Amino acid sequence: KEPGPHGPTFSGPAATREGWFPEMCSLWPGQALSLRSRFQDILAFSVLDGVTQSTERGRVSHEMIANQPACSHPKRTQVLVMGGPGVSCREGAEHFPVESGRPGARLDGAVTSSPLKRILPGMAIGYSSAKLTLHVGEGFQFMKQNDAFNVIITESSDPRGPAELFKEPDYQLMKMALEDGIRWGPGGCRWLRLGLIKDMQHFCRPPFPGPRAEKPPHQVQVPVQELRQKPVELRYCNSDVHPEAFVLPEFAREALNDVS
Amino acid sequence: KEPGPHGPTFSGPAATREGWFPEMCSLWPGQALSLRSRFQDILAFSVLDGVTQSTERGRVSHEMIANQPACSHPKRTQVLVMGGPGVSCREGAEHFPVESGRPGARLDGAVTSSPLKRILPGMAIGYSSAKLTLHVGEGFQFMKQNDAFNVIITESSDPRGPAELFKEPDYQLMKMALEDGIRWGPGGCRWLRLGLIKDMQHFCRPPFPGPRAEKPPHQVQVPVQELRQKPVELRYCNSDVHPEAFVLPEFAREALNDVS
Repeated sequence: KEPGPHGPTFSGPAATREGWFPEMCSLWPGQALSLRSRFQDILAFSVLDGVTQSTERGRVSHEMIANQPACSHPKRTQVLVMGGPGVSCREGAEHFPVESGRPGARLDGAVTSSPLKRILPGMAIGYSSAKLTLHVGEGFQFMKQNDAFNVIITESSDPRGPAELFKEPDYQLMKMALEDGIRWGPGGCRWLRLGLIKDMQHFCRPPFPGPRAEKPPHQVQVPVQELRQKPVELRYCNSDVHPEAFVLPEFAREALNDVS
Repeated sequence: KEPGPHGPTFSGPAATREGWFPEMCSLWPGQALSLRSRFQDILAFSVLDGVTQSTERGRVSHEMIANQPACSHPKRTQVLVMGGPGVSCREGAEHFPVESGRPGARLDGAVTSSPLKRILPGMAIGYSSAKLTLHVGEGFQFMKQNDAFNVIITESSDPRGPAELFKEPDYQLMKMALEDGIRWGPGGCRWLRLGLIKDMQHFCRPPFPGPRAEKPPHQVQVPVQELRQKPVELRYCNSDVHPEAFVLPEFAREALNDVS
């Protein structure tokens, strides 16, 4: 059952229990994934209001968020990465054919701050890429002043819940900042938060028709460019995995089918 | 890191903590999935030596184990289901074109006992199917006396670890009991136990060349029969999901690539 209109409730503070960090929330009742650090006091993952956001080990979402759009758009010289621990910039800097200093081509990164630089340096290294122009400030303000992007990657969190950041007007704003472009980002867990995904679809569909629309702007299911294995070392993505990401299990297909 | 040659160690007995059942084991260090029952004292999932085996909610593996072979073999009148809580019999009884009492056609189920009948009746109902002939006894003994199966489904556990049941000689025995057939069963978690899957492949490949072999006995990636949505209500499987199950993420493809 999805949480009510009053939002999620947590079972307690994001404190560790016997060295374990249990992620308990009314958004996913009766289930909890716990992580334990191999070191005594250093938890090598980032937590925003009680919800785990990034881990060094789980590279799936980071690789997918950066590499799928990199292979889906025929023209991708104007790229904006919003938020996140820097890993999309890291991945994107390798994949996007942006030449630093070339007029009209740019890879922009917009973050409010870089609190993870010391904690997750392997990810934050993306912010140091020579290809990237980093803007520290409010991302949506940046978008209002800059547009004509081919790809906008948002390492955004959910539109409802403890790490609520992106809402309906923000998607409208992203549409305005794109030029025949793709917006790419995490959609939420289909196992635990299907109702949330449905809500998101309702307000995302008008500006972004999606890959299954009658006349989609881009056929993103089939990559226009092979996923290059080198020089980037990919641990999850490959050319077979790319189309797999668009396949929905029956319960999700059914639930999301009426949202066209 | 995979566990050493002395096998896994558990952090404690399979006891609940404040109503939660945490699954902690040296096989997956630093990670634990906890489940909590919605009822006070009834845990609606089965546990074998500390490892969660079945839940009423998680139908993925059960549907895949039964429905994928049902759609992969052109002839499937002789079917054997070994072990498990009965859910493969339940799914299989709907999908396999076995007519009860017809000579030469049979759906056999072999179990040592049915301890889950009262705890998970929704699954155990499979053992009551009119199509099924249930054999309570030692499954491998049954296979020695019965053969010419088109499909053998094993709801088997891992060949190493706390629920160790199926080993190399058992796969040889299954090969003997098949006639131009398919053996289907769970392979283990690629995230947590990749080394184990590699070990299994090493001793499974000689009798079972696998779908990626040069001359595979069956092209199981593409279903020979569409997954029927009715009368069986499938929550996970559909015709798009079937081929998806054969796609490996890069880290798994790399690790298993040299095992041909």
